[in-house]
Amino acid sequence: MASYIEPKILKGFRDFLPPAEITRRDLLEKIEASFRSFGFLPIDTPALEYAEILLGKGGGETEKQIYRFKDNGDRDVALRFDLTVPFARFIAQYRGELTLPFKRYHIAKVWRGENTQRGRYREFTQCDFDIVGSDSPAADFEILLMMRNTLKALGVDVSIRLNHRGLFNHFLNKLGVAEKSVEILRTVDKLAKIGQDETRKLLAEIAGEEAAEKILQYIGSHGNFEETLAAITDLSGGESPESQRLKILRKYMLDSGTEGSFELDPSITRGLDYYTGIVYETFLKDDPAIGSVCSGGRYDNLAGLYSKPSSATEALTGVGSSIGLDRLIAALESLGKLASRNGYADVIIACIKEEDAGAYQTLAGKFREAGIPCEVLLDAAGSIEGKKLTQQFVLAEKKGARWIIIPGADALKDPLTLRELKTRQNREGLTLENIIDHVS
Amino acid sequence: MASYIEPKILKGFRDFLPPAEITRRDLLEKIEASFRSFGFLPIDTPALEYAEILLGKGGGETEKQIYRFKDNGDRDVALRFDLTVPFARFIAQYRGELTLPFKRYHIAKVWRGENTQRGRYREFTQCDFDIVGSDSPAADFEILLMMRNTLKALGVDVSIRLNHRGLFNHFLNKLGVAEKSVEILRTVDKLAKIGQDETRKLLAEIAGEEAAEKILQYIGSHGNFEETLAAITDLSGGESPESQRLKILRKYMLDSGTEGSFELDPSITRGLDYYTGIVYETFLKDDPAIGSVCSGGRYDNLAGLYSKPSSATEALTGVGSSIGLDRLIAALESLGKLASRNGYADVIIACIKEEDAGAYQTLAGKFREAGIPCEVLLDAAGSIEGKKLTQQFVLAEKKGARWIIIPGADALKDPLTLRELKTRQNREGLTLENIIDHVS
Repeated sequence: MASYIEPKILKGFRDFLPPAEITRRDLLEKIEASFRSFGFLPIDTPALEYAEILLGKGGGETEKQIYRFKDNGDRDVALRFDLTVPFARFIAQYRGELTLPFKRYHIAKVWRGENTQRGRYREFTQCDFDIVGSDSPAADFEILLMMRNTLKALGVDVSIRLNHRGLFNHFLNKLGVAEKSVEILRTVDKLAKIGQDETRKLLAEIAGEEAAEKILQYIGSHGNFEETLAAITDLSGGESPESQRLKILRKYMLDSGTEGSFELDPSITRGLDYYTGIVYETFLKDDPAIGSVCSGGRYDNLAGLYSKPSSATEALTGVGSSIGLDRLIAALESLGKLASRNGYADVIIACIKEEDAGAYQTLAGKFREAGIPCEVLLDAAGSIEGKKLTQQFVLAEKKGARWIIIPGADALKDPLTLRELKTRQNREGLTLENIIDHVS
Repeated sequence: MASYIEPKILKGFRDFLPPAEITRRDLLEKIEASFRSFGFLPIDTPALEYAEILLGKGGGETEKQIYRFKDNGDRDVALRFDLTVPFARFIAQYRGELTLPFKRYHIAKVWRGENTQRGRYREFTQCDFDIVGSDSPAADFEILLMMRNTLKALGVDVSIRLNHRGLFNHFLNKLGVAEKSVEILRTVDKLAKIGQDETRKLLAEIAGEEAAEKILQYIGSHGNFEETLAAITDLSGGESPESQRLKILRKYMLDSGTEGSFELDPSITRGLDYYTGIVYETFLKDDPAIGSVCSGGRYDNLAGLYSKPSSATEALTGVGSSIGLDRLIAALESLGKLASRNGYADVIIACIKEEDAGAYQTLAGKFREAGIPCEVLLDAAGSIEGKKLTQQFVLAEKKGARWIIIPGADALKDPLTLRELKTRQNREGLTLENIIDHVS
């Protein structure tokens, strides 16, 4: 070979070797099974879209982070940086073909040229799920319940902290600072990061010291769900459709026996502009400091930007959430709850004679037909003559198998030996049926 | 909303609405289950890599088709256009961490700015599987068997047409045209497309008329596997390690009772340079005209370009294959073998009172725990009062469910009604356990 190119990947991007990729796929399968168990349907959209579509109204941070370029046809294109914007475009484009309310999930990679410090990646996987076309509190609750059940299925106990943007806006309105709500919401959103004192200072700059103090009081602790609801209902000017909705959601939680997973937390605001109803973040009970692993909220008009202003179609309201797979994996890892395995095959067939490879595959085929993954060792080191059986045992264990089968001289007729790798116990004189029963 | 952006996607790219995406995921799950049943392990690599890595030695067609650009850090980057080149880089980079022989699969999207005529896409999914680090014919056979079994699992009967590049090279050598083998191989590869006469003409231009005639004779029909093997062994100068390997592969096929799926076809060459051993293409018995849905071969030194010439590591030989998901779907569709369904939930719970959404989710939870996906209707049209139960039946059928459950006034205590949507039969007075038994 004349030339040599150093094998390396871009900063912020990752290769996944089998153990890590198996872990990812195991998690994704559980997540997807949970989504499907609620009757949610998958969609997919292109990784590459018109930059105009993805950037929409534009936005400072997004514009800086997006991978944007001219394609060979001189089109201005970009890699998707989230799954929400493509979904908004999708909803506008196929509205007539979708059955509403539309419950969809989308699990896919997104790309952002972010600063790679602080464990951020430039390529990462998001798992989004939304219900579009229903304003019902039952839809809000379904998304909340899916968050809880999906994370429970992964073995983590979560606390979902919930708030209502509309109620907070009533409060700001009463306070006379409604026109500054966007800035105030963004500042409150940083509370956990920057602390109470810095938040007070920033809020005072925006809304004055007196308002700042009242906002801090509103977003502070008020006790349990009912007490907090009573307090913020009062602070926001009394009963309203928004406080009613929180009351209904509380009833749903109690009726389904899931109330232990939810908190009403008036400091949750989410930074993003498009949320108008409930908003929520999810923290691991065993390690809340790692931050939210699943967040979202209700929005009024997701597809508005892509819907003809002239058309008579009404705005599509919806509610959704997103699991950040990479942060979740980091969290599970730090909690020691990340199951890992080296392979899928519990059963491995040793190679005695290379010329019998066809017969070994026939044996293996019986396991595969019974739903048991089964690997055939090929020759283990290029030359079977030089490979002792004990080395095949070591190899099989390294691959994560529990059993190795040692065929007889006539692989298809002779009795078989089954060795349990962990205990090093051999059981001889077995039929294939014996073994399939034993390992099933 | 002040502005409006027309919702559209780039030419050659596709959105997948739920029915199409469910079909894709169903197929991919079967493919992946088949790969895993052989003990193959998944890996993943970045969508975006250094252009230098992906382009390697360069290549006219690839260079024209690749999505290449400068990122925000002025790095020369590109989207992967196949999964083979990233795998070569991967193997070189992690060689020390991998257990050889390394059996891996990689299912992922790739991007090529191809001409979108003739049903070609610019974003498509490949399913690659390879064994690296074994020169054994048992490895060749395992890949061939996986091709067969995986496609069988998808409900299609295939004929895998096999050839040996080395044997063909012996023949060209004997013919005295070895130095033109690359051009000759590429020309023969086009036989099915351009026909015998055009092939003869092109071959004559490359190697002279007499050689052209002999090549056409070599790549022509010689009868069954054994007859063909005898003929091309003879034409290539007698027994050789390459003819021996084909003989061993034939034994494996017979020993495993899979010989009906394989043909020896001397006209199969594969256009790509890196194949050195067996090569193969897969045709559907019911529709061979659609072309190969799964192809590959054996290569000598996949990671050579990315391996330090100074290092003492030996070349890594391997054998692999790739299923083109999009062509496969087109094939299944044209054969009417593409199963489709509208959703995952067989059971749907009707919404009688919106305030009971928590109780409905509790009912649904029992099905989900039993492994039965179950959807809860939220309100069906924004207002449950306006929504007759019959409309919910229609909606449930549209979603692809088999059953709808009609709760009583007290959703958790009253007996339930189970309606089979297709037969419109109601069964009343049931307990939840009755229903779970019935639909399981």
